[in-house]
Amino acid sequence: MFEAFWRETGDAAEIVIPGWQTMSYFSDVTNVCWFLEPGFDHEVRRLHRLVGNAAVDGYHVLVGTGSTQLFMAALYALSPPGADEPMSVVSTAPYYSSYPAVTDFLQSGLFKWAGDANAFNGDTYIELVCSPNNPDGSIREAVLASETGKAVHDLAYYWPQYTPITRRADHDIMLFTVSKSTGHAGTRIGWALVKDRGIAQKMTKFIELNTIGVSKDSQLRAAKVLKAVSDGYELAAEGKQGHHHHRLFDFGRRKMVERWSMLREAAAASGIFSLPEETSDYCNFTKEMAATNPAFAWLRCDREDVEDCASFLRTHKILTRSGSQFGADPRYVRVSMLDRDEAYDIFIKRLASLK
Amino acid sequence: MFEAFWRETGDAAEIVIPGWQTMSYFSDVTNVCWFLEPGFDHEVRRLHRLVGNAAVDGYHVLVGTGSTQLFMAALYALSPPGADEPMSVVSTAPYYSSYPAVTDFLQSGLFKWAGDANAFNGDTYIELVCSPNNPDGSIREAVLASETGKAVHDLAYYWPQYTPITRRADHDIMLFTVSKSTGHAGTRIGWALVKDRGIAQKMTKFIELNTIGVSKDSQLRAAKVLKAVSDGYELAAEGKQGHHHHRLFDFGRRKMVERWSMLREAAAASGIFSLPEETSDYCNFTKEMAATNPAFAWLRCDREDVEDCASFLRTHKILTRSGSQFGADPRYVRVSMLDRDEAYDIFIKRLASLK
Repeated sequence: MFEAFWRETGDAAEIVIPGWQTMSYFSDVTNVCWFLEPGFDHEVRRLHRLVGNAAVDGYHVLVGTGSTQLFMAALYALSPPGADEPMSVVSTAPYYSSYPAVTDFLQSGLFKWAGDANAFNGDTYIELVCSPNNPDGSIREAVLASETGKAVHDLAYYWPQYTPITRRADHDIMLFTVSKSTGHAGTRIGWALVKDRGIAQKMTKFIELNTIGVSKDSQLRAAKVLKAVSDGYELAAEGKQGHHHHRLFDFGRRKMVERWSMLREAAAASGIFSLPEETSDYCNFTKEMAATNPAFAWLRCDREDVEDCASFLRTHKILTRSGSQFGADPRYVRVSMLDRDEAYDIFIKRLASLK
Repeated sequence: MFEAFWRETGDAAEIVIPGWQTMSYFSDVTNVCWFLEPGFDHEVRRLHRLVGNAAVDGYHVLVGTGSTQLFMAALYALSPPGADEPMSVVSTAPYYSSYPAVTDFLQSGLFKWAGDANAFNGDTYIELVCSPNNPDGSIREAVLASETGKAVHDLAYYWPQYTPITRRADHDIMLFTVSKSTGHAGTRIGWALVKDRGIAQKMTKFIELNTIGVSKDSQLRAAKVLKAVSDGYELAAEGKQGHHHHRLFDFGRRKMVERWSMLREAAAASGIFSLPEETSDYCNFTKEMAATNPAFAWLRCDREDVEDCASFLRTHKILTRSGSQFGADPRYVRVSMLDRDEAYDIFIKRLASLK
């Protein structure tokens, strides 16, 4: 979806890497995260300050091969090695389907998936809080609280194209990714903002053991892309002349508003689908009221005879992910709102035609 | 060490990535490894055919975030999920210090480190065969054999700058990395050649769960770098005019011969260090006899009063990794032979001065 935007920006987000550059494993041996490119660190902090979605002062920035690797790193860092039992990992349903899969695929003795946070009994746990939530777009807070419990905040979708920015988040561990903020999924770059130095060191150790650091090329590219986003707002604000300023979040918001409007119309036309209610709030970044426009639609099929919405849609050539994969009712499915225009248009036409 | 070479190659190994390129998670959905860039696949196969160090016909090429991720992927793929006991992972000592660390850091129920292959009793295991071996440069074959045992061949150093190419390796799973072949450690790109489709699928699944694929930017860069290496030989052989042809393996071999000669002189001058004997063989790639020039020196301190060589060297400002980390005698240390010229020269001077 963002490709059209980046085609317009010309060389502002282009990188050139000569054959001899960034050949070393190391970026800055004085940093806790010794494989973090300083330029990427700088642009991450700059963008958060511009958008106001997360605190960066007093935080360590860590880079990962996508935010999935940082999610695993956080589980590793928050699970003491000598415990009698693996640490319980929970999240309120419906939860991102990768959380249980990624937590359990290596059958770690350090941590294990323990399901819906609302059904959890105990004081020791890691609660995953995804806000806005994948798959249903809801704004979330931790539901558990204890002295020994920890939370990891997955804020991949906490950007102005998806939701009003209502506060500067300042949780202990916050995860972000260029995949959702700028659309560059292929670069596989995520970052974590981490308050505690010891946790930051353990997360860094995980990435050292898992992949001995993170692609320098992608860090350089991500830095350039984030710079282009910030420049689009800050240079324009300074009234810099000579070239057109491209504003990613404005572009993204326009697209999302348009797509959500198409989807709500199609669902209404069909008469058999319902969607989460639209909510809105004042956005501190845009300085105006804005509606939530989640990156995924959490679609419910209301037809009495359809118990498995994903199968029903599949027979009509619409591919979605079943609610059952998110710990929820299979009458629900998750639909991506970030596909290419052509694919999205076909999806809307097919959906509207169903009865 | 290779940086000087790549500074000479000009734009042959340079890449330019526009802001809109390779934004998707996907590279080729028809491939087992759906996140593998076809251009990288092509250049990997081309280079192996040129060098003759590994068979590629009938193999799947998989890409990983360095070969470490592919090593973990192989453990995952070769360890059945329903087993009573975790799979035993072994390697002949001295073995690469990361093998036990990477195998055990998540305390997986699927696999666990079981030490020196020569001391292992049992029929079910994964044997890691590193050849030429890290840390001692020896040429290795699997020492265990059983119906249910599996081997993973880590051939990171099986390139003409380090060793004569004596045969086209055709093992079930072979691991390589640009870090050691071309010197581009910072790109974090490794690849596996895998015979069995089912194993290739499981390894791909591991990378999907761990990092949802591998940086496209680094794959594009690695493809360009490997292409420059192959072009350096093939275009020259075709007598292409108009520009100078740079030959990576010739450059690497000259450097390694020079460094090993310096090291052997320094060890002899000190009188208290010994090194593995130099061996040589006919190299099918260069079509001449060639000595082994390992990427690491496995240095033994012969002084009676020194039981811990790494500590002894540290007091003389030489940083090495102790033999004990490789499952071996602490009278040994591993020294990197691939450092920058300045650092290597200082090491040699300090070593020669010890008595």
